[in-house]
Amino acid sequence: MKPVKHIKIKKDMKVSELVENMGEMAFGARQISDASRVMGKMFSDKECKVFLGVAGAMVPGGMKQIIIDMLDETDVFVTTGANLTHDLIEALGENHYQGESNVDDSELNKKGLDRIYNVYMKNEVYEKLEDFFEKNWDKLKECKNIKQLLWKIGELCPETKENCILKKCFENKIPIFCPALADSGIGLMIWGRLAQGKKISIDAFDDMKEIIDFAWTSKKNGVIYIGGGVPKNFIQQALQFSKGANYGIQISTDRQEPGGSSGAQLKEGISWGKMKKDAEFVDVFCDATIALPLIYASLKK
Amino acid sequence: MKPVKHIKIKKDMKVSELVENMGEMAFGARQISDASRVMGKMFSDKECKVFLGVAGAMVPGGMKQIIIDMLDETDVFVTTGANLTHDLIEALGENHYQGESNVDDSELNKKGLDRIYNVYMKNEVYEKLEDFFEKNWDKLKECKNIKQLLWKIGELCPETKENCILKKCFENKIPIFCPALADSGIGLMIWGRLAQGKKISIDAFDDMKEIIDFAWTSKKNGVIYIGGGVPKNFIQQALQFSKGANYGIQISTDRQEPGGSSGAQLKEGISWGKMKKDAEFVDVFCDATIALPLIYASLKK
Amino acid sequence: MKPVKHIKIKKDMKVSELVENMGEMAFGARQISDASRVMGKMFSDKECKVFLGVAGAMVPGGMKQIIIDMLDETDVFVTTGANLTHDLIEALGENHYQGESNVDDSELNKKGLDRIYNVYMKNEVYEKLEDFFEKNWDKLKECKNIKQLLWKIGELCPETKENCILKKCFENKIPIFCPALADSGIGLMIWGRLAQGKKISIDAFDDMKEIIDFAWTSKKNGVIYIGGGVPKNFIQQALQFSKGANYGIQISTDRQEPGGSSGAQLKEGISWGKMKKDAEFVDVFCDATIALPLIYASLKK
Amino acid sequence: MKPVKHIKIKKDMKVSELVENMGEMAFGARQISDASRVMGKMFSDKECKVFLGVAGAMVPGGMKQIIIDMLDETDVFVTTGANLTHDLIEALGENHYQGESNVDDSELNKKGLDRIYNVYMKNEVYEKLEDFFEKNWDKLKECKNIKQLLWKIGELCPETKENCILKKCFENKIPIFCPALADSGIGLMIWGRLAQGKKISIDAFDDMKEIIDFAWTSKKNGVIYIGGGVPKNFIQQALQFSKGANYGIQISTDRQEPGGSSGAQLKEGISWGKMKKDAEFVDVFCDATIALPLIYASLKK
Repeated sequence: MKPVKHIKIKKDMKVSELVENMGEMAFGARQISDASRVMGKMFSDKECKVFLGVAGAMVPGGMKQIIIDMLDETDVFVTTGANLTHDLIEALGENHYQGESNVDDSELNKKGLDRIYNVYMKNEVYEKLEDFFEKNWDKLKECKNIKQLLWKIGELCPETKENCILKKCFENKIPIFCPALADSGIGLMIWGRLAQGKKISIDAFDDMKEIIDFAWTSKKNGVIYIGGGVPKNFIQQALQFSKGANYGIQISTDRQEPGGSSGAQLKEGISWGKMKKDAEFVDVFCDATIALPLIYASLKK
Repeated sequence: MKPVKHIKIKKDMKVSELVENMGEMAFGARQISDASRVMGKMFSDKECKVFLGVAGAMVPGGMKQIIIDMLDETDVFVTTGANLTHDLIEALGENHYQGESNVDDSELNKKGLDRIYNVYMKNEVYEKLEDFFEKNWDKLKECKNIKQLLWKIGELCPETKENCILKKCFENKIPIFCPALADSGIGLMIWGRLAQGKKISIDAFDDMKEIIDFAWTSKKNGVIYIGGGVPKNFIQQALQFSKGANYGIQISTDRQEPGGSSGAQLKEGISWGKMKKDAEFVDVFCDATIALPLIYASLKK
Repeated sequence: MKPVKHIKIKKDMKVSELVENMGEMAFGARQISDASRVMGKMFSDKECKVFLGVAGAMVPGGMKQIIIDMLDETDVFVTTGANLTHDLIEALGENHYQGESNVDDSELNKKGLDRIYNVYMKNEVYEKLEDFFEKNWDKLKECKNIKQLLWKIGELCPETKENCILKKCFENKIPIFCPALADSGIGLMIWGRLAQGKKISIDAFDDMKEIIDFAWTSKKNGVIYIGGGVPKNFIQQALQFSKGANYGIQISTDRQEPGGSSGAQLKEGISWGKMKKDAEFVDVFCDATIALPLIYASLKK
Repeated sequence: MKPVKHIKIKKDMKVSELVENMGEMAFGARQISDASRVMGKMFSDKECKVFLGVAGAMVPGGMKQIIIDMLDETDVFVTTGANLTHDLIEALGENHYQGESNVDDSELNKKGLDRIYNVYMKNEVYEKLEDFFEKNWDKLKECKNIKQLLWKIGELCPETKENCILKKCFENKIPIFCPALADSGIGLMIWGRLAQGKKISIDAFDDMKEIIDFAWTSKKNGVIYIGGGVPKNFIQQALQFSKGANYGIQISTDRQEPGGSSGAQLKEGISWGKMKKDAEFVDVFCDATIALPLIYASLKK
């Protein structure tokens, strides 16, 4: 048995040292360190395809850059329509703002500010979205499935791949899946055109082949779930067609007891065949805006 | 100020009495009672359209019947593909089973059992799903959007509307939306046919017009969110086109601090215009399999 | 394997029926039903000593009566100084009030209202406490340990045992332990007299013998933890001197990952010998003001 | 309004840089950065007395050293008997060990290992505690209150102040309060002597004067709560006799809805006068073994 060692904070400590020391502790600190180790292995294992699932308002929360950087190690990216909409909003020159959670929401409404916990967004961002879709409709309307549509938006959006998730996915040809895209601002833009009688025909199921093929054909798989929701579940579903993931990291604060997929522990996936029984995996109980920068920075040494 | 009164448990107490007494207490008990009151008003307000969003593994958890009954009061139903798949699985004669959460998942895997917290499902259920889709493909393949497909499955599935969500929605013409249907067992069945070269063309955005029209045209709106996820967010999105909901109930155990939509308090919706500033609404922090039977039973007197 | 059965809400349903039906479901509902079963067994097992630990602001929350009633089945009662202070405050004619959590606390402060989530208490209640201790000091100062002091307060307080925890414990000679009594309004009253130069000498450790003797000498033990904190831990500690509890119920919403005793699962106690390995026990993840009325009412049939 | 800036992870990043960048983000990351700023101010404000309350199994979790270091900035220290017992156990040469949470607890029991989430402790540590108390009883039995007893244990324990909380408090004359000391291994050692007929007389209320005097006489107060429990509440209680704290940090994962003190937001204290209305304070929703090393290390630059 390895004794717990007490972390000693030193002057000018590096994140990598901090996380290394956490590996000699217990409770959540050890989960952070375990996640760092598993992520390091997953990223350096040449045979391993990395599936990254990102739910939650990560772009409004200040995590866009870290996602862009992690895409360099990602083979399959699944996220929510909301994150992609917020990414596009920033690509079009708008911002998200630091706000407060304990606030009078009807005052915000009068000021035209939409609140996401302690973030505000101007409601007028939708005008820029409208302009973008109006201007680019002729190109967008040719797309046939959600991945094509998202890549096309990435191609057309006026931002570099260093600062934009959609552009990065397009330029680096990283497949991006988002089954519930209708449930987002981008979805609303499509609806708006449809309501004007314009035509587009995006198939709801066409992307499935590609993500399942990734799971099916890769020698090894690794999963990183930031939050749960559709991104986690859609990857889990594909993994049923693999031999089970070899590596897994989940960062979530949801409870497992009420039975939802977002709170389910990774080990549950072993019963389904989504996770190998001898896989290296860790459930991190922590806000992702704290845990992920810590884990990711610990690898950059 | 109203004094807190201490609940007195009596012999053979009815649920309605218990919840009424909870209304004189504090903390979570008062949330239950408030939710009972708001649900009662929402259901009896003739001008109010009720939007019911159900995420989480509610069908495996034993909540199918309560959802079927609540559909009598529901104008728009949004749920996950998983719930609908589990509903169809039961309609095809299969069961979910009471299990344990603290268990060896690799043993379950060997036995062909898939675990959902403390529920097990036989992996072989997929065979019946395959048969159903194989047998009914000619009719299903004609569908053009997700709502049509789900109603068609409801029409074809061999169960009565008293025991099946999909059948009930079909027979009572309750619109059922599920933007991420690809992310479910039903989605896998579609993928399976596509992979065999069969054709179907389901539009990913076509349903949006209908749900937004509901929000747009109704005099009043009420929302009930069981869990968060896409069901909550898709309703919230539609409500941006309404004058804001007049009534709201959310049952969730998610935290608001990490910023995700599932944990966001209903009051946040006021800033977005999704909730009226003087709406009657309550956030219930409780496992839905406890809270919803309690709240719903309190109204049946 | 037992199939999950879907709960069917009926008109005028009794709580006992609701909870019985929950036993055929899954997730949290099944925990409620399991707790009902375990509590029933624990209460009807003549050889079993029942240890009830109550943390959290249960008296302000409206749970005083249910605790008073449960004391009829309780052999050893451990709670916080806060709950006993709030019990005494009510015995002296004051109330707790229904309030709001989303409120301007500096406004409350100006109005002399102290907030406990969605409960308010007038700050002036302390005057009545002062009067009570001033008037009864000669009798109180004779006490030598915390249990004696609490029984004496119970004896002296102007309320019946039907409406007062302290009176009930005194009259029914139920041992009541509260190691951190200094950490409460009652503690402040003692401090106030000491600061005036008055004398009292209450031993901090004297009660330990009695609670450990209970654990040591009883044939069987059962534990009920409402919240965690000192009440849970003090009982757990005593149980190390038993053969381990035979029955256990814990109602808490705390997480286990950060390692605190309040969030620890009951099964952890098996390693320590606090719980028998074949004990019947259940962890209920639920607000106690919801779960306990439901569980307790289910037994009153 | 300040735009959210996206954190950019750089090679060999320092913790101070990481946390500084978190201050430009949102959600939990911003709470970490706010806590860093408030802690920095609290520690550098010469007029401010710092009250540090530590609940939860922080010593078993690997946080002993960080607490020892923070004591340099602490005027009043309140913790649980458990933390002090675990500190003494290590001072006597024993260890805590890295373990697993998902384990067969009856196997651990057979091996003589006590589990605290993912930490194990040998049950035989109690023998060393017995020896220590046996050997030093003549000196310990002279103590009259809990603080004296804890300082005396610190004086006698065979470890340096660089490695032992109790020794550090004794040598640096940092008042250490622990109202529920009976509820701990140290309490059990006292009980053991009392059961043998040995005498000691520790007053349960005597320490109150000193902590309240601190709150009463200081110009400014700052509070740091690691977890809740008695440590938080005992400080909060004392602060009612101050002008309200000027600075506050709380690190906890408990929910506020069930009404317990441990989950209560700091802002609630404004109504009670425990916190100034214009105080600088932040509630951090995070496992303390992750958050505190991060926050504390960010100040060491």
